[in-house]
Amino acid sequence: MQIAVVQHAAPTDPGALPRETVEGIHEAAAAGAKLILLPELHNGPYFCIEQDPSRFELAEPVPGPTTDGLGVLAARLGVVIVGSVFERRLEGVFHNTAVVLDADGRLAGAYRKMHVPEDPGFHEKFYFAPGDQGFVPVDTHAGRLGVLVCWDQWFPEAARLMALRGAQLLLYPSAIGWDPLDTEAEQARQVEAWTTVQRGHAIANQLPVAVSNRVGLEVSGSAEIRFWGRSFICGPQGEMLAVAPESPAVIHAEIDMARTPRLRRQWPFLRDRRIDAYAGLLTLDGALSTPRRPPGAS
Amino acid sequence: MQIAVVQHAAPTDPGALPRETVEGIHEAAAAGAKLILLPELHNGPYFCIEQDPSRFELAEPVPGPTTDGLGVLAARLGVVIVGSVFERRLEGVFHNTAVVLDADGRLAGAYRKMHVPEDPGFHEKFYFAPGDQGFVPVDTHAGRLGVLVCWDQWFPEAARLMALRGAQLLLYPSAIGWDPLDTEAEQARQVEAWTTVQRGHAIANQLPVAVSNRVGLEVSGSAEIRFWGRSFICGPQGEMLAVAPESPAVIHAEIDMARTPRLRRQWPFLRDRRIDAYAGLLTLDGALSTPRRPPGAS
Repeated sequence: MQIAVVQHAAPTDPGALPRETVEGIHEAAAAGAKLILLPELHNGPYFCIEQDPSRFELAEPVPGPTTDGLGVLAARLGVVIVGSVFERRLEGVFHNTAVVLDADGRLAGAYRKMHVPEDPGFHEKFYFAPGDQGFVPVDTHAGRLGVLVCWDQWFPEAARLMALRGAQLLLYPSAIGWDPLDTEAEQARQVEAWTTVQRGHAIANQLPVAVSNRVGLEVSGSAEIRFWGRSFICGPQGEMLAVAPESPAVIHAEIDMARTPRLRRQWPFLRDRRIDAYAGLLTLDGALSTPRRPPGAS
Repeated sequence: MQIAVVQHAAPTDPGALPRETVEGIHEAAAAGAKLILLPELHNGPYFCIEQDPSRFELAEPVPGPTTDGLGVLAARLGVVIVGSVFERRLEGVFHNTAVVLDADGRLAGAYRKMHVPEDPGFHEKFYFAPGDQGFVPVDTHAGRLGVLVCWDQWFPEAARLMALRGAQLLLYPSAIGWDPLDTEAEQARQVEAWTTVQRGHAIANQLPVAVSNRVGLEVSGSAEIRFWGRSFICGPQGEMLAVAPESPAVIHAEIDMARTPRLRRQWPFLRDRRIDAYAGLLTLDGALSTPRRPPGAS
């Protein structure tokens, strides 16, 4: 199966189906892709650079205009599309939501970002309630998809849960870039760390991984981020199959879904998980249970 | 702090303190290392290539001859040594055990390998009972060490638990090599996957990682493994600091322990773990609880 990743900058005409998104999808489908991944929040600016209550106006319901538009494209082209929406679930509860349009245009499922960042230039905890529906893959004509979003990429727990629940592919719409104050050496370390940790999820779970990142400079008030692009697709041994430059691009790779079961029989990692000894993963400090009294209380 | 990794082949004089181990430790200490990591089961052959009951004769208690010998060296040189022993815990219960000798020669702690492989050439489930004491770092003069062993390196859960429990460094004595029947391309993918997944643990946990591997061909009956060496040390962003060739070597790197807290404040991954949604990690298939009846029973 051929898959494609569309990497683009903030659209010049924000809305349900901006030109950059539509052109990228058409280019990917024309080249034979059956599954197309878009960047995080691709239909508008990355508004999380600052905390600004007026930006909630950009949100929309799911299903809504963006999923409707992507669904029409998916059905017309016969492709599965994984997009990303600023979701208004109810007034006061907004999410950063990945949406999956199946090849028949149906909204096959959605994933509400579970790990939400909050750091200079990435004020997502202000805008988004963390997802409350866990890590559940979405079944499509292109297989069972483990759709996660950006910050999730730093958490092996998320990739593992998707894999255990039958995901055949891990997909990360992303929006990550540099603080202009970082040195060149630090910028290089960050890109390499971002790439490597996600290749690590591929390897540990023996699954292909595709990542779509935004690209280009975005400014909001006095703050700015240079999104670094470098979207990529790797195979289930973490081997790089395609990588984008720091400019808009559509990248492609052939994925052989039969390799995952072969690898899992050759190096049977999942057989040997020590589920009897992982309880500490359910606390913040690895303790075997959370104390019920505040620290220091007697 | 300077750390060193000693990479050597199966010793020509197996026993508590083979020449290769002693020379490697002296070379590392002379160059200024304060923490020295040895390969897995460094004091003898990698006997797990085949299942052979007579090989249990190689086992020894902990503490025992190897920890005594390493302790004398550690105290004389004023270094922390992490070694690896085929441990006889009691007749019928043997472990693959990493041992930690503190800079005063004291046995500071041990770690019994939790994830135990069993695949062609690596028949460890025949020899070793899986550890029953979980993932607990060891305090030393060189910091709190997250000592794991080889096959553990494929499990992000192990690295995470050590990190949550305060490990300042992750250390993996290893014995990994190629099946001579693998193609060159497959061999390259395996080395890269092995390196990458461990760099991924460094990144996800913002900790330095050091790995010591065996090197060289070992033959047992009709089976053989070519241990691929390539021991390495990487920093807390996964950046490679030192890497060994496919031959005996001692590699060194300077580790700045203050970088971990700095990185964890810049990109606060650990703050955002979704411990409310990780319960599925405690089952083999990600289900939220283990059914109490066998599959298909009504």
